[in-house]
Parts: sequence; C-alpha cells; structure tokens
Amino acid sequence: MQENLIRTDLIIESIEVSKASGKDAKITINEYTEDDMKITEAIVTKDQEASFGKKAGTYITIDTSAIVENDHEALLKIQKQIAKQITKLMEKHKITDDMLALVVGLGNANVTPDALGPCVIEEIFVTKHLFDLHPEEIDRDGFRPVAAIQTGVMGNTGLESAEIVKAIINDVKPKFVIVVDALASRSLNRVNKTIQISDAGISPGSGVGNKRKELSKDTLGIPVISIGVPTVVDAVTITSDALDLLMRHIAYNLKNDDPKNNLVPVHMSGKKDLENVELPDEEVRKSLFGELGLLSNEEKQKLIYEVLTPQGLNYMVTTKEIDTNIADLTHIIARGINLALHKNIN
Amino acid sequence: MQENLIRTDLIIESIEVSKASGKDAKITINEYTEDDMKITEAIVTKDQEASFGKKAGTYITIDTSAIVENDHEALLKIQKQIAKQITKLMEKHKITDDMLALVVGLGNANVTPDALGPCVIEEIFVTKHLFDLHPEEIDRDGFRPVAAIQTGVMGNTGLESAEIVKAIINDVKPKFVIVVDALASRSLNRVNKTIQISDAGISPGSGVGNKRKELSKDTLGIPVISIGVPTVVDAVTITSDALDLLMRHIAYNLKNDDPKNNLVPVHMSGKKDLENVELPDEEVRKSLFGELGLLSNEEKQKLIYEVLTPQGLNYMVTTKEIDTNIADLTHIIARGINLALHKNIN
Amino acid sequence: MQENLIRTDLIIESIEVSKASGKDAKITINEYTEDDMKITEAIVTKDQEASFGKKAGTYITIDTSAIVENDHEALLKIQKQIAKQITKLMEKHKITDDMLALVVGLGNANVTPDALGPCVIEEIFVTKHLFDLHPEEIDRDGFRPVAAIQTGVMGNTGLESAEIVKAIINDVKPKFVIVVDALASRSLNRVNKTIQISDAGISPGSGVGNKRKELSKDTLGIPVISIGVPTVVDAVTITSDALDLLMRHIAYNLKNDDPKNNLVPVHMSGKKDLENVELPDEEVRKSLFGELGLLSNEEKQKLIYEVLTPQGLNYMVTTKEIDTNIADLTHIIARGINLALHKNIN
Amino acid sequence: MQENLIRTDLIIESIEVSKASGKDAKITINEYTEDDMKITEAIVTKDQEASFGKKAGTYITIDTSAIVENDHEALLKIQKQIAKQITKLMEKHKITDDMLALVVGLGNANVTPDALGPCVIEEIFVTKHLFDLHPEEIDRDGFRPVAAIQTGVMGNTGLESAEIVKAIINDVKPKFVIVVDALASRSLNRVNKTIQISDAGISPGSGVGNKRKELSKDTLGIPVISIGVPTVVDAVTITSDALDLLMRHIAYNLKNDDPKNNLVPVHMSGKKDLENVELPDEEVRKSLFGELGLLSNEEKQKLIYEVLTPQGLNYMVTTKEIDTNIADLTHIIARGINLALHKNIN
Repeated sequence: MQENLIRTDLIIESIEVSKASGKDAKITINEYTEDDMKITEAIVTKDQEASFGKKAGTYITIDTSAIVENDHEALLKIQKQIAKQITKLMEKHKITDDMLALVVGLGNANVTPDALGPCVIEEIFVTKHLFDLHPEEIDRDGFRPVAAIQTGVMGNTGLESAEIVKAIINDVKPKFVIVVDALASRSLNRVNKTIQISDAGISPGSGVGNKRKELSKDTLGIPVISIGVPTVVDAVTITSDALDLLMRHIAYNLKNDDPKNNLVPVHMSGKKDLENVELPDEEVRKSLFGELGLLSNEEKQKLIYEVLTPQGLNYMVTTKEIDTNIADLTHIIARGINLALHKNIN
Repeated sequence: MQENLIRTDLIIESIEVSKASGKDAKITINEYTEDDMKITEAIVTKDQEASFGKKAGTYITIDTSAIVENDHEALLKIQKQIAKQITKLMEKHKITDDMLALVVGLGNANVTPDALGPCVIEEIFVTKHLFDLHPEEIDRDGFRPVAAIQTGVMGNTGLESAEIVKAIINDVKPKFVIVVDALASRSLNRVNKTIQISDAGISPGSGVGNKRKELSKDTLGIPVISIGVPTVVDAVTITSDALDLLMRHIAYNLKNDDPKNNLVPVHMSGKKDLENVELPDEEVRKSLFGELGLLSNEEKQKLIYEVLTPQGLNYMVTTKEIDTNIADLTHIIARGINLALHKNIN
Repeated sequence: MQENLIRTDLIIESIEVSKASGKDAKITINEYTEDDMKITEAIVTKDQEASFGKKAGTYITIDTSAIVENDHEALLKIQKQIAKQITKLMEKHKITDDMLALVVGLGNANVTPDALGPCVIEEIFVTKHLFDLHPEEIDRDGFRPVAAIQTGVMGNTGLESAEIVKAIINDVKPKFVIVVDALASRSLNRVNKTIQISDAGISPGSGVGNKRKELSKDTLGIPVISIGVPTVVDAVTITSDALDLLMRHIAYNLKNDDPKNNLVPVHMSGKKDLENVELPDEEVRKSLFGELGLLSNEEKQKLIYEVLTPQGLNYMVTTKEIDTNIADLTHIIARGINLALHKNIN
Repeated sequence: MQENLIRTDLIIESIEVSKASGKDAKITINEYTEDDMKITEAIVTKDQEASFGKKAGTYITIDTSAIVENDHEALLKIQKQIAKQITKLMEKHKITDDMLALVVGLGNANVTPDALGPCVIEEIFVTKHLFDLHPEEIDRDGFRPVAAIQTGVMGNTGLESAEIVKAIINDVKPKFVIVVDALASRSLNRVNKTIQISDAGISPGSGVGNKRKELSKDTLGIPVISIGVPTVVDAVTITSDALDLLMRHIAYNLKNDDPKNNLVPVHMSGKKDLENVELPDEEVRKSLFGELGLLSNEEKQKLIYEVLTPQGLNYMVTTKEIDTNIADLTHIIARGINLALHKNIN
C-alpha cells in the first residue's frame, strides 16, 4: 500500500508530493513554455536520490492537451519537441550520429492503455539490417543503424522485459537504448496529457503496480533514454484529486464573496485555475469538511485507499477515448524518435 | 447537467435514487439468487412511468463479478441465465418459434468500451438467408429465421441508429428486435458487472450522454428486447461513490468501537458490505465531514460535478482490462441470444 | 461454370474477351495517359448491352502499379484522379453540390481481400448529422450532406446488401449513391492494380462467384456510382494467363531468332510487353504445344477449369501483401470520394 | 532462380522431386493413416543430407483438409495428433517433464498469411515467471517452466530472428526450443493443408524466398522442434501444377475410352485421384502438347518461371479465406504445443 501511494512514475508528481510534504528537495527545476507546451526540466543529482526518492538524471516533462483534444496542428509541434528533447539527452551522453540505437517498446499490445510501447515500435524506421546486408547501398550520412524490439509482457512471455533487453544488448551491442512505455498517473488531469522524457531509467509496468526489473544505465551499461506517458489512473487518485479541488473551489468562492453557504451549488462558473488556488484556512476547512478537512493529502489518500480497496473498487481506469488517444500518441512519439535518430528524415 | 446527474440506464440505480430521495416508487421488485448470480426483476407500470422516470416494462438485472474476475466456470452459467431471461420476455410478448428476429448491435466498433454491440453481432447465428435461399434444406424445427445488423454510430454514418433500424424493419418485416448496447453506470461498482435485460426500450448512446432517438415498441411497432451492460462511468460518480463509502466506513468503525479518531487509517480490514452499512447520524457526520457531511447524495454529486466539469476533469472512464472484459461479455451475450433464438443450439 | 468463365467485373476484360472472340462490340473506347496512369473510358449504349454482355453506362478504368509497389508519390496522384472521374460522373447525372450522398461499403470486414468497402467507409467524411442537428453552424458552401453505411455480408446479416441499401434509401432519401466493393479479376496482372469507376451499377460479391441483387439506377431509382478494385483471382485464371504468355514468349523468341529449341530455358531476358506480342502461327503452335496450342482462350480456360475444379483446386487467391494493399487502396479511394463530395476539402 | 525452383520447406515435396528425378534417395519413409489424417514419417540420415538436399532429422507430415473445410470435429483430432508427434520428438531427444521450454513464433504479425507464428505465441500457456516468482505455489507435477517469444521480422526489427533467439537462449538457458512458422509450398494443394513437425531445424522466411539464418541444434546447441504450415504458393507453382494435372487428366480420359479429341471439354466428371494417374506416353504427350509435353517438371517450371518473372507476375499468393484459416491453425497448433508441454492440461 505505502509504495502504491507514494510511488509515481512522473517527476512532476514527486515534486508536488515533496512540496506538499513541506521539505524542499532543492532539485534544479527549469520551467518554460514553447509552442504552447509547458516544458519542465528537472535534474536530480546522485546525492538527492535518497531524500527525493527518484533516480538521478534529467527529467523533461511536456504538458499538452493536444492528444485528449485530438488537435492535429498541435500534435505536429509535439513530435518536433519530442525529437528536440531526445536529441538534447543524446548529446548529453555524447551519442554520435553513427552509433547503433536499440528502440524498445514495453507493454501489452492486447491491452489498449498499455499498448503504447508496442504500437510505437511498429512505426520506428529501422535500418540495422540494411547496414548489415547492403552496406554499400546505404547513404550513411543522415542515417544511423537502428534496431527495434517489443518485449511483450511477463504474463505472455514468462520473461522479465529487462531480461530480454539485456540479452539482446549483450548480443547486438547497441550504443544506447530508447525505451517507450505507458505509465500510471497520480492525477486524472495528466492521463494522456503528459510526456516524460528522461535518462534516469525506467521500471516496466511500475505504473500499473507490478514493478519489474529496472532498465537503466546502471543495469544495462549503456545510456537509456525513456519516453513515458501516463495512460491509467486509479480510483483512489481520482477521488482524492476531486476532494482537493473541492476544497480549493470553496476557498475560491469564499475569497470572491460568493454566497455564504458555499456547499450549495452555484451557477456553473468558467474554468478557473483551481490547482493554484490556496486551500482555505484550518478553521474554514474544519467547519466545511470537519476532521476530513484537516487531513494531509497523504492521509486522505491512505484513508480512501483503505476504504475502496477491500471493496474491490480501487480500479485502474483509463479514458473512454483511449483507442484514439493511443493512436495519436503512437504517431507523435514514433515520429519524434525517428526525427531524433535519423538526421535526414523530415 | 441536471439530466446528466439524474439520468441512468440501469433500473437498479433508479430504484436506489428513488429510495434515497425518500419517496417510494412502489414498483414491483422481485429479488432472488440463482447460480450465485443476484437477479432482480422489476416491473414498471404505465402509470408509474412519470413518477419513477423510467419507461414501463419488465427490467431484469443480473449481477455478477464473473467478467471482471474472468471466471470461465461462472461465465457459462451467465449465458444460460441470459438465454432464460430473454426467453421469458419472448414468451411475455407471445413470440413463437418461427417468428423472424432482427438482432441489432449499437455502438462504435472502434471504441473498445462501446464495441459490445458490434462484437456481439459478429457471433450471432443468422439464418434468414438460408430460409430464403434454400428453404428445403432447412431443418425448420429448432431454428428460426434470424437477421442481424450493426448500425454504427452517428459520427461515422451521419444517421440515427433508430432511423437505420426503422428502415430495415419496414423492409424486412421482423416480428421482434433484440438490441445490444454498452451503457454508462452511476456506480463504479457496476461497470462490467451488471447485465440488464428489458422490454422497455433503449436509447442508443444515452449512456455516454448524447441521447439518441429511442428504440422501443412505441417507436418501432414491434417488441424490443434490449440487453445492456454498463462499461463506462464518469469521474463525478467515482468520487461521490467513494465519499459515500468513506462515511459508511466511519460509521462502521464507530459501531464497532474502533479507535476514536476514525479518520486516522487503521489496519486494512477485510471486505465488509459497506453499501449496507447505515450512515452515521447527523452530529457525527457534521463533526467528521463538516457541512459536506450534511449534503444529500444528489447535492454532493452536483457539487462535485460543478467542481470537476469546468476543470475538464469529468472524464468518462473505463477499466484498464476493458479489452478482455468486452471479449468475455461478447461471448456470453451472443451465446445467450443464440440459445434463446434457436431451440436446437446447445 | 459457363458464366464463371465468361463473367467478369472489369470492362477492359470484357473488351479483351470480345476482341479475342473476333466479333467487335463497336463500343466507344477512349484511352489516354495522365500522371503515368493509363486511363480507359468506355461507353456501353443500351442497344450494345445484349451483344456485349455489360450493362449500359460509362466505365472508367485507372491502371496503376502504385499500390503493389507501395509508391506514395503516385498514390497521391491516383486519389486526385479518382476524385476527378467521380466528379465527371456526378456532372453527367446533374448532381449538384447540395444533394445528399449515401456512400455504401460492400464486403466482409473480416476477410482481408474483401474488406475494401468497409475500410473505405471508416474514412468517409460524413456530415448529414451535422446538417440535421446544427444546420446553423454548417458552412454549407463547400460541403454537402453525406451519409455512409457498411452493409456487411449475407453470411453475417442474413440480408441481401441491396435490400439493406434499398431500405435506407427509402427512408433517408439520398439523391445518389457511391458504392465501393472488392472485385475478382480474370487476370493476375490486374489484382490490386486496376480501379474501375462506373455508373452502370454493380452486383455485390459477383466477383467471388456468388452473384447478389444488383445495385443500380434501375433497382434503386437514383444514380449509382461504383468504385471497384479486383483483389482476388482464381487458379484457372492464373494458369491460362501463364499458358497464353508462354506461347507469346515463344513467338517472341522465334521472331527474334532465338536458339531453335524454344522450350529450353534461355537466359532471363528483361521485361518485354508480351501481352502485345502476337501468338505464333497455327503450325508453330501445333508443333510446340500440340492440340493444346490450337485451342481458343475460352476452350483452354474451360479445360483447365474442368481439370482443377473436381480436384478442389480452383481456389480464389490473393496477394501475400494483401494487408498493406488494402490499406493503401482504402486511403486513396476514401480521399478520392471525400474530395469529390466536398469542394472545400483538400 | 535455381534454388527458388528446387528449394522447398516440405519434406514430402523433396521426396516427390527426388522421385520425379528418377534417382531414389533411399530415405526411410513410414506412411500410415490415423483419425482420417495421412501421416508420413520420413527420416533423413547425416550421410543422406548432401544427396537428398535436406538436413538430417525426423520429418513428420500431417495431411488434412480440416482447416480449409473449417471442420471443427476434425480440428480437435489434429491438435491431439500434433501433441502426440511433438511428444515423440521430445522423447527422442530425452527431454524430461521439468525441462525449461522456449516457444518461438516466427513471422510478421501484420501480414495475415505470415502471422501464424506470432498468433500461436499469444495462446501458449507460459509458466516460467510463475516458477520464478512463486515457486511454492506451483503444482510442479504436470507443469513445466515455459517461456515464449515473438521475434518479429527483420524489416521491423532490423535483426535476424535467429540472432534474437540465440541471445535469449544464452541468457534464459532453455533446454529445448519449439519454433512455429508459416512456410511456402510448391503445390497449391498443400496450402493450409499440411502440417510438418521436425527436429531438423528451420530457416525463418525461407518459404517466402528470403532465406535467413537457420534455427537448429547445430546453430543453437539445443534440440529444436519446428512446426511449419505452408500458407503461400507462387504463380509458377500453380501453373505447372495445373499443366501436370491437365496431362494426367487426358491420360485418364484416354485410358477410360473417352471421346477421341480429349482436349474438347467433356462433362464435368467427379473428383478422381489425378495425382496418382500415370502420364500418357511420349507419343500421346507429343501429339497433345507438342514439345511442351516432353519437358520434365523441372524444365516446365523453369520455363514458366522465366516467362512470368520478367512480367512481374510471379506473385506469392494465398487463399481468400486466409484469415479464418490462420485462426483455425493457430488454435490447433497452440493447443497441440500446450498439451505436449504440460501433462496436466486437457
């Protein structure tokens, strides 16, 4: 339970948690906006690992609602942004244009919200066999040798994904790995909206609660660039998110002299940035939400978890439009990777 | 908004709502258990329609966790139960063994949680063409003429499903219709767990909030037997369900002399039937949940709806395992229909 | 058997047959090349129907190897060409920009070589519902109301496709129909290479030997524009084609003073346009092929048919790459239709 | 070209070829019928390899028309037969009940006639992870550790399938391998009708003409049991098969005093076992087919190959019903493997 509640695949969620918990992790964070995407670059150092609870490395987060809104204009910008960020990490690790890349798709092709990895692999522009079989015909400048594999999932293969990747690496000897996986989010608001690109490594299926052997430079011996998107969220998360927003909503109405009894529904108001509204003070929270209002987020989550789980209600859920969401994500991530790996593609 | 909160496709949810609202709808309800399935048979009369807010007719509800638990033993029992209940409704409407049946699959084949109807149609044993082309070869005893169509969804066809069905009926002249559709639930606890069989008619896509022209004896002129399963639920529902359970959980702990401060997580307790635990009294609710604790379910839902919707967070969600859930549902419903339509199948 | 041998869905094949048979059908034929596509426009008049064995109307044939060669440059040109030819037929039938269109996809979505119709429907830009529900919001200029349906196949629906279409037309009242279907070819050389656009009507599944009720202006009462592509061919066809080419190959070698004994394989020669090489004269044919060499194409086909069929060997076959071929055909035909129906798309 | 004509994946075809060529390979062949299936067991010894052109080992061939006829009764018998033959080979190689098995699916999941391997893997009962993670919970008696992988195809991975399998073996250390692949046939009459089980090794994609590194005990160091089914055939094969049958057909008619001019089609006669009818004598062949009639099968094939190939007509083709054929093959082969690997399954 603990780790289920505390663990998250997304750095921005870890940052929120550490903020909420009061103790500042002091990790370097650089936020900026580009092409209407909010980009967050966080760097965790070796000695922050323990205190912050995330592996050392660079974590780039791209926030966009283009996928859930199926906005094709914006999707084109995202794939360029993905390519740009992957390239940045490749440069950080001194990966040159002729180095062999292995692209790995994690996840279950038969479970739609978990099929992102396998789907992306289908669209990767692989070239290793061309370099091997017809070296002469290849216009080497602008293209690098690329191999790609789907690991499948343990339930279907009987093998750890990390085990399969390691075996291939020992034999094929790529110079770096790019891994794609679907993740879990601690916020409904991030499902199919957040793309995290990192060189800190990734643990297959950690999102869905059954943590597997990690894929990282430590375990594989070569740089690992991971691209993850949260596609599922659990019922506990949805509920505690809603409760939190509910309290901020009240606080907002109070500050804006809304009718006294703030729990009586008022006319639908336009979207306001509730997440940045401060919570009401203790006294107000107590009067509106009783002792519930005095619990920390952690405590609220634990409580809801304890209530829903024995009822068999802590489902992992995904969006009703998951089929199209995965299709859109597949295209932008695959193209982003292809653009980063082959200078001559456009 | 109103209707979104009040409307539901499931009779048992309407019953709960009317109970909660205090006013007893006095509709006839017959509950019993068979093969470990809880069966609820409710009958709404013409003159109860208005007060109760559901069309007149017989509503049979089969409750089972066999699908979410992928329990193949139990699945076999359900398909027999489905056949039995369909047969009962066919007898109620004096449908004889030689009458032409039209089976209709509603929904979008490309949206997994909405694909139940189209998938079932693929497995219906159709025979009309055999009766038409080789009447002599047909062993008429034990088989009836059956036709089947998928209507697709308005977004892909530009046509109302009801319009397509009406057109086919006018031309093909079936004696009755069996309709299969995916529904929405007002409770996470019913998603992929409840099968509703009714002769009161059905409104395509009503589940997902865009109500379409109804398919019923009134609109089509022949008996309509509908089979619906809730496969999606919205975030508002999940949250208010959880809040409600949370309060009952506290009440339960209080009654059982649990440690005083009931909001501090206690050790995980086994599954208890929280839904049947009474809520704590006003005073306790007030002290634990403040004014929030005093709201009615309706009020709580409206409030949460008002908070989540402007934030674009009132997602329709489905289970992570929706692919296998739909596959299992498809088999049991298709076989249930085939068994009911053709006496000679087994 | 007879009809199986004589019937073909492609006008160019009927033309060849009638040429081969000596008697000239005297139908108007206009051949030209555009964007590297060979376009053949044939017009059959009412009084030629009987003698020529094809329904009266305009038949446009687009020949291209872009699909089998997966040539994306060329594919773009074809979709423009398809749009152009559909537009021409729409003008011939005085179809104006605001008239409601019904697009019909024939065939079995679960049988890859027969899935062209259903696949195309998935990509049609339908608008009727928008015109119906939000007439005010529609920029009527540049868009027309369009509806689209898949009829499925008799084996799955129990209904004739023509019956379903007729029922929808009676109810929805479109002003014209566009039908898409996969056909059979009498030549391996045309499979996935020939696109036939016509206003003479079409018979679902006629290609695969089980002729169904025809869809045409005669039967539906409104103009019917059909788009067909041969995706299957039978073993008899492949064999007799090869035998015919074999004889022309010999003739070619003779004319070019190739080594005397022409049946001993010579070095692989580059592609020559064998189809336009004349057959060797009787005497030579007799000495090389015996009595077999004296048979007409019809006779040869009948003979092979009689040999293979009782052996259960007259399979309908398709290309190994049928999956990608159908995908490519789907895109160009769907886009071609969308371009023709909506002036404002590009 | 040569190898294309001579190479075949099926032992029974090699046997025919060697018979036709007159020189008897003297390999041990044991034919028998069981449950209406014709079973052929051929054993090639080390010293026969060179002369016979096939790797040493046991080759079991199961002949059945159950798949093309979709005969479910018979399909059950085949899966038992497959299990029985696999078990026989496992015993030959002293494979005991507790030895780790690796099941490998070769081929392209996105090309229907090549998807047999990947499809089978989806239905293999894998257990290795259960033995690894919860050794205590496993009822070891009756179950063995099993892992399974799909290698994908070089065009999508950039890697040789053999390379991937070798890498996994080095790491996972299975005691034997079971490989499933779709093959090519030299006879239309065997497509989806012949199942070959062998311990002589297999070369991925050899069927479709692009031979890859072989998977065998020699290359992998552990026993390799391969299961192959021909799902494609080329146009040259179809044509020369038909020509050959044509000649035997004539011979048959002659022997049975049919009307003199035997090339004029006679009334359709019932199925006769033409393959076992002797060819007419030289003189007759010469008069009926000219010099063509005097060519050997090899020469005929070479000639047809030379004619069709430059015309781009030597397509690899498959049956129109390939989708259902692959589905049926997948079930019987997967169950056959599961039955052979786990004594406690039924």
